[in-house]
This record gives sequence, C-alpha cells and structure tokens, in this order.
Amino acid sequence: MPDVKTNPGRFFENYRVGETIRHAVPRTLSAGEKAFYHALYPARHALHSSAPFAEKCGLSGGPFDDLITFHTVFGKTVPDISLNAVANLGYAEGRWLSLVRPGDTLVAKSEVIGLKQNSNGKSGVVWVRTTGLNQNGTQVLEYVRWVMVRKGDLDAPAPDTVLPALADVVSPENLRLPDALDFTEYDFTLAGEPHKASDYEIGEQIDHVDRVTIEEAEHMLATRLWQNTAKVHFDATHRQDGKRLIYGGHVISMARALSFNGLANAQMLIALNAGSHVSPCFAGDTVCAWSEVLDKAETSSPGVAAIRLRLVAHKPDIAPFQLRADDGKYLPGVLLDLDYWALMPA
Amino acid sequence: MPDVKTNPGRFFENYRVGETIRHAVPRTLSAGEKAFYHALYPARHALHSSAPFAEKCGLSGGPFDDLITFHTVFGKTVPDISLNAVANLGYAEGRWLSLVRPGDTLVAKSEVIGLKQNSNGKSGVVWVRTTGLNQNGTQVLEYVRWVMVRKGDLDAPAPDTVLPALADVVSPENLRLPDALDFTEYDFTLAGEPHKASDYEIGEQIDHVDRVTIEEAEHMLATRLWQNTAKVHFDATHRQDGKRLIYGGHVISMARALSFNGLANAQMLIALNAGSHVSPCFAGDTVCAWSEVLDKAETSSPGVAAIRLRLVAHKPDIAPFQLRADDGKYLPGVLLDLDYWALMPA
Amino acid sequence: MPDVKTNPGRFFENYRVGETIRHAVPRTLSAGEKAFYHALYPARHALHSSAPFAEKCGLSGGPFDDLITFHTVFGKTVPDISLNAVANLGYAEGRWLSLVRPGDTLVAKSEVIGLKQNSNGKSGVVWVRTTGLNQNGTQVLEYVRWVMVRKGDLDAPAPDTVLPALADVVSPENLRLPDALDFTEYDFTLAGEPHKASDYEIGEQIDHVDRVTIEEAEHMLATRLWQNTAKVHFDATHRQDGKRLIYGGHVISMARALSFNGLANAQMLIALNAGSHVSPCFAGDTVCAWSEVLDKAETSSPGVAAIRLRLVAHKPDIAPFQLRADDGKYLPGVLLDLDYWALMPA
Repeated sequence: MPDVKTNPGRFFENYRVGETIRHAVPRTLSAGEKAFYHALYPARHALHSSAPFAEKCGLSGGPFDDLITFHTVFGKTVPDISLNAVANLGYAEGRWLSLVRPGDTLVAKSEVIGLKQNSNGKSGVVWVRTTGLNQNGTQVLEYVRWVMVRKGDLDAPAPDTVLPALADVVSPENLRLPDALDFTEYDFTLAGEPHKASDYEIGEQIDHVDRVTIEEAEHMLATRLWQNTAKVHFDATHRQDGKRLIYGGHVISMARALSFNGLANAQMLIALNAGSHVSPCFAGDTVCAWSEVLDKAETSSPGVAAIRLRLVAHKPDIAPFQLRADDGKYLPGVLLDLDYWALMPA
Repeated sequence: MPDVKTNPGRFFENYRVGETIRHAVPRTLSAGEKAFYHALYPARHALHSSAPFAEKCGLSGGPFDDLITFHTVFGKTVPDISLNAVANLGYAEGRWLSLVRPGDTLVAKSEVIGLKQNSNGKSGVVWVRTTGLNQNGTQVLEYVRWVMVRKGDLDAPAPDTVLPALADVVSPENLRLPDALDFTEYDFTLAGEPHKASDYEIGEQIDHVDRVTIEEAEHMLATRLWQNTAKVHFDATHRQDGKRLIYGGHVISMARALSFNGLANAQMLIALNAGSHVSPCFAGDTVCAWSEVLDKAETSSPGVAAIRLRLVAHKPDIAPFQLRADDGKYLPGVLLDLDYWALMPA
Repeated sequence: MPDVKTNPGRFFENYRVGETIRHAVPRTLSAGEKAFYHALYPARHALHSSAPFAEKCGLSGGPFDDLITFHTVFGKTVPDISLNAVANLGYAEGRWLSLVRPGDTLVAKSEVIGLKQNSNGKSGVVWVRTTGLNQNGTQVLEYVRWVMVRKGDLDAPAPDTVLPALADVVSPENLRLPDALDFTEYDFTLAGEPHKASDYEIGEQIDHVDRVTIEEAEHMLATRLWQNTAKVHFDATHRQDGKRLIYGGHVISMARALSFNGLANAQMLIALNAGSHVSPCFAGDTVCAWSEVLDKAETSSPGVAAIRLRLVAHKPDIAPFQLRADDGKYLPGVLLDLDYWALMPA
C-alpha cells in the first residue's frame, strides 16, 4: 500500500514555535491578474488604474494594488496554516515592504511564533509571522496572523504556551514607503476627489454609500486566482447548510474598493494594524462599507501623509457607523473590522 | 463637522452649456482586458482575436475591440453625467478616431452642449459631447449622449433651453479610418465567412441565430471592468424589485458579438449613428440579435468598404426582424436598437 | 433574396474522407488567458504558476497550461465539426507537440479520417484528426476525435464506411517532450509535494479530496474564452429542460486542477490516450476527482519520467474509485473518464 499522497493539512500538534514553513507553488503575477482585480472589485484608485498616474507619483511599472500582494501571499499559506483551521482570529504588524509589479513572482514563508492549546484540549491557537518575497528574495509583505486549528490527535500533549508580544498598531516610523514615492505633483481631478490628508479629521466617519451584492461565481474566481485552497469556499457539500463561505479577503477587497467614494486619495495600503472577520459572508449578501479616521502621521516622502483608518464592511440591516452593541459585542450585521495605514497626499 | 467626502453626482441644475468636465481615474488597458472581452462576450472577429491577422490588415500591436474603447470612456463619464440619471436617452455622432492597444491609458472629458428642463420641473435633459483621449492626448473616440437627470433642488431656476443640432447619421466622408488599414490581402477562410460588403444588399436582414442567457456575475464583472459605478448595476437593494439592471453597454457588446454569425467580416466599428436601450435587461434574460443593412459606402482605404447596420438585440419572446408595433412603439421584447457603421472587405 | 449568411454547421453528409478543413479565427493568447485559467480552475502546478520555476526546468517564457492549448484548438473546430453533433464520442492519439507561450497565435485544421453512417440513417460518426499550429506553422497539438453528427438531408446516400485504425494508447516512444525539459534541479518543496514517479505504483489510486461546485457564469466565461460556439453551453432556451450543458473540456480542466492534491508533480500533459464525457454536467453540480496510475515509462529528458494516469471526475453521489456497475456500464455519477500521459520528476 503506497503512502497517502494528498495533503491532509497540519493539525495543532504539528506546529513548533521557531520553525519556518516554506510554502509551496510560487506565483507569477501579470497584467491578467491586474485586469481581474478591476473586474472583481469596483477598484478605482488612480495609482493602480493608470500606469502614467503611478509614474507621475514616482512609481514605475504599473504596480499592483497592495491587496493583490496580500491575497497572493495569504493564498500560499493556506495549505500549511489554515486547512484545518476552525477560525481566522486576527492580524497584526502587517507591513507592505516593496511594490509588486506585473512579471514579479511571489513566494511565501511563515515562522511559528506562538502556540496556545485551548482548555477543551481539542484545538489551539497558532500564531505565524508570514513573509512574502519576490523572485529576487526581496521582502514584499509581512504580517502576523493567528488561527484556531483543530488537533488531529487529541492525545498529543499540549505544547508550552508561547504568546507573542504584538504591537496594537504599526507605529508610523516603522512604515516603509516606496523609495521614489512623491505626491507633490498629484492630480486631484484625475484621482477623483479633492480631499488631502489635512482635510480629514481624526474621528471623522465616512459612509461610502455604494454597495455590491456578491455572487458565488465572483468570490470563487477571486479565491482561486489567489490559489487559496480552503474547501469551504468552493464546495457546496462541505457545510451542512450547503453554503459556500466567502474568503474573508474578498470582503476586504470589496470594502476597500467601495471606500474609493470618500477616500479616493488614500491610494496605497502600507500597514495592516488589525483585522477581524466578524461574521461570515455568503453569496447574495450585499456589502456596504464605512470608514473612520483613527490617526494621521507625517512621512519623509515628499507630499505624502499616512492616514490610519478603520474600515468596516457590513450588511444593509445595520446603519452606517454602527459597530458594537451595548455589551461591547459586534452587531450581527458587521462583516469586517479592519485597521490599516494608507498613504495619501498631505 | 468636516465636509461630506463622497460624490453625490451632479443634478440637472449643476450643468452649464459650454462647460467641460474632466472625468476622473485614467485607465491603463492591457492584455488582461482583452482576454476578459473574449470571456465575457462570444467575440470572434479575427481582427481582435489574432494579432497576426490584424498585422496583415495593416494594424500592429493587437488593437482592442472598438467597444472596449467605448465602454472604458463611457465608464469614466458615469460619476459626472449619469449618477443621478433617470434614463439614458440616446447617442449620436459617435466616431472612433484612433485605435487603442494594450498599454494605452485612456481619459475622458465631456462638454455640455445642450440642456432642456422637463415640463414637470423635476428633471431635465442634458446633452454632452464626450471625448476619449489616450496618454499622448490623441483623441480615440467621441460621441454625443443625452440623459434625463433629476433635479436636486426643485426650486433651482430652469436654464435656457439649448437643443444641439445633431446629425441623424455620421456621413461616410467623416469616418476616420486607421491610417494603414488595408483589406486587400484579407483571408476570408481565417475570418470565418466568405461575404464581402458587395455580397450584402441594402435592406437585407440577418438573424444571427446564436443566443446567450446572461448571469449576474458576468454583467457585474464587465461593468466593473469598465469602472462604471452606477449603483443600479451592482446593488440588489437599490431597486424595489431587488433586480440589478444590466449596463446597456453589456447588451451592446453581447449583440455585437452574436452578430459574428452572419457578419464575421464587419471587423471594426467606426461610427455610432444612434442607439436606444429600449427595454431593461436583467440576469436570466436570453439575448438574441438580428441585423439589417441600412447603407453601404466606399472608403479611401484599400479594399475597405463601410457598411451601415442596424443591430437589434431582443428577447426570445419576439421573432427575428420584429421591431415596432403598429402604433410605432418598440415591441416589449426589444432590448436594443443600434445604428452603426462598420468596416469590412469591399 | 441574398444568400443566408449564417453558418448552419456541417451535417453528416457534408464530410468526405481525406478532406482537410481549415478552421476559422486564429487566436492570440496572452497573460490574460493565463490569469483566467487560474481563476477558472484551482490550477496550482508550479510549472504553469511560476515562470522562474518553469525556467529552472528548462522552459522559458512562462508556457501555458497544456489544456489551454487543447481548449483553444478544440474551440476552433466546433463550428466545422460539432455544431450539429449529437454526441462527442471519444479521443485518441492526442499529443502535445510544442509549448505555447503568451504572445503565440494558434490556428487549427482537421482532416476527416473516418465516416460511418448509423443504421437508423439519421446520423453518422465522423472521425477527424485535428492539428493545432502556432504563428510559425509549428504543430503544437494533434488529436483524433470522433463525434456523432446529424444528417441534414436524410435522403443523402450513406458514404462508404471508413474506420480509422487508432492506437489504444500513445506509446511512450512517441511522446514528444519539450527540447530543454530537465527535472534534475526540481524543487519539490516549491512544487508542493515530495512524490516522484518512482513513489507511485502502477494500480495505485488517489482520491484528490477537494471538490468544486460549478456556477453558470464560470463555465460560460471559460467556454467563450476558448471561442467554443456550441449553443447548448450558453442558451438556456436551447434544451427543453432549460439547462445549459457544461462544455466537457471545462470538466477536464476542473478535474485536472483538482488532481494537484496528490499529483502536484505531474506537471505537464504530454499525451491524451482516450477520453469519455460519460454524463452531462450542469451548473450546481459538485465535481470530485480521483486518479489511477495506469503505467509509467522512462524518457530521454534528464530526470523526467512519464506517468500514465486515469483521471475520473464524478459527482459526490458515488464514492471515490467507483467507476462501472457490474454490467460494465459507467455508474450514473461518473462525469469523465480520461486516460493521459503526464511528465513528472523520475
């Protein structure tokens, strides 16, 4: 009898703090993926829509939307990190480190940085620091993610608990801006809105107004494009209720694209401070989005400011700017609560 | 309290005859958009399917289907022209002026050329002449479009009525053919049909036989790809009936692609004389198409004739070649009535 | 009255043994089609996902998945071969002869090699040997396919029966491997699985575990992308039951992509020995796949072995490894039974 050849995924007892997992299947990204991003999401930020606009901001080669980098790297990690995950619990310390352009090839690796078995003995939490690299070995993205993973062998001993120390927010001096980025000749008319960072107040909230109702075909096309293999996104026989759970990153990209209307000049994502996929999203759901300005910071790039934003995706059953009930729990209609730094004209 | 940051769109009273609106978000088009066009529509005209075929007709660089140019330019105008439109009323004097190729970046501007408030005082008709330009400032497309737009402030005074004088049809001497276009070595076998312009009679009608049933995911992918932001195409909560209205341009491209079967050699669109989106189209509808030869003309390009065609898209509940009832009104099953000039071997 | 301009397709009596049909509409393939393949199918074989991985295996230019070549060539043949086909009966002697890369343009031609009228006098079987060629006239693919085609004129005399002699399997010495292919520096970690050809036993069966539920929009996008014009895939009014039959090649690509999980190193398809589209597939069906190792062979390329595989796609109502009932007939849940040679590290 030959060995089983398929990948069963890792279980909680298969992770060791300090080990580094090299993820499989490098991925060359092209103009095709760029077109797909514009077809899948109502993405209109000028920096990723127009190569000449990017060029005028110092960025050659028509760089990809930063979330293409995120999804591609994330997708690589799924077979090793989240195939047996019960829940995707959080993100921290995410930073985009170098731009990715058509023709680049990405690989990913993850270091296990924390482990904690749950008190029920049936699962545990795994923290990994994932790094995406291009074909030259240059780091393009890093982030910490933690997931709850089932144990395969319930008798496996609990590992020593290691809780990584994680920053609540990436501090502005740690943002790594693209070398040549320069917003001093920024064309606000072409970009679609007149608002600079200085026009936004901390605490300001923006209802992005536009909405998208999601279809099965769309989220599956997206999730496959990022080579994310989690069965629950594709197989209607996997869940008891016959529903296919939409990849949380699809909701991130949808909400981010919707945020163009009111944040058209928040051109690039540069750090991911935190994120929570609050409720599952399914085909037929209509996604709405609102943002809140959490902070602002100067940068050393000419004309460029950083703006820290909360991006909330929700269903139409709750009104904009609603988030938590009196008991502090998220309201049922909330899909996503994301905390990120973006770059915009100062 | 900061200003509202989102775009409410323009209302009827916000337009002034003579003003020029520079539309936002330039768009670089690539091989990805080309592949999408072939996936979204059953497009098979050899000039856009095969770079060597185009090359042999004098056109280098694998030019895009002319409707990609149209949709991209049209999409740019939506936030400024039709976000508060009640109806898209017509097109006139449309001309493709220069080919667009992968790598080109398009922008658009519109001049307001006519205004007429409706007698109900609640809305009015706005005429704009829209021009698409590439990254070198070369005009690639121009067309007049008129839409009915709601008033935001019902007390705003009615503007002076200005009705633009518009040609019923672009006259053949005003068609601007690509410089090097040459059909003298045209390969009819590769193109798929043997019929020259001289094989078509004025008045001849062609039932294109093929049909396509449209899905939500498809029309939304298309409409997003052209960065058309009209809510009604994406948001199932926008209309009372929960339906998403299909972008009229999606029906144009579908019907044009279906017309390959019988008009395989009508390779390029070169002018848009008139067009009417007669009835709304929704997912689940099956689109059929028929054409009528309205006119023919010689051109100065070697081996190239112009053929003026009516292209009708309809639902299967009416038979081919049906168009209007005895009272002159369009029959309920008609979706589109388009009048255009195409180029084909003489 | 002018001639009918649309293509009625050929009927059984329109084929002559020995004639060669040049198929229409050459097709230039690009990075866009590559991205689509990854969006439509859960394709993860490293050779087609990563240009540097392919380069390290001796293959420059980021070659396409071999099934892109197959679908494109097949699509070209539909208007001439299977527009009036009642059934797609089989494949034999299929060989990939040269790699196709972004920028290449494919055309196809078919030679009629066999004819047999059915005893009912209403239809007959047509055998064709189809060849795909690139823009330089280099053969990229050839295969024999036979289809049952309706007669248009029931009174047309039956042709002499000609039954082509076809090999049951492409013999290993006839496989044509890409010139520079070399697996001696193959990176199994990047490829996703550790298994070499020598790790597989003849007779070994692999359940590929993953499943995909298919949507209408997806199979239509795919089938249009390959310019396959068969009405039954697109037109919900074509069949009495209102269903759109999924192009059999869509099921082939889906099953092949699913087979990554267990056969990640079977990087390239090099021959198609036989294939049967056992049952129709419709949107909503969930596709599962299993494989069986039928044979193995050495090749003259460094580090490269050939492995002959049976790939079965089925619905979840039957268990993996089930194929035929006691009477020898395929079980109802079987969708596809494909027999091919792949290349993998020795």
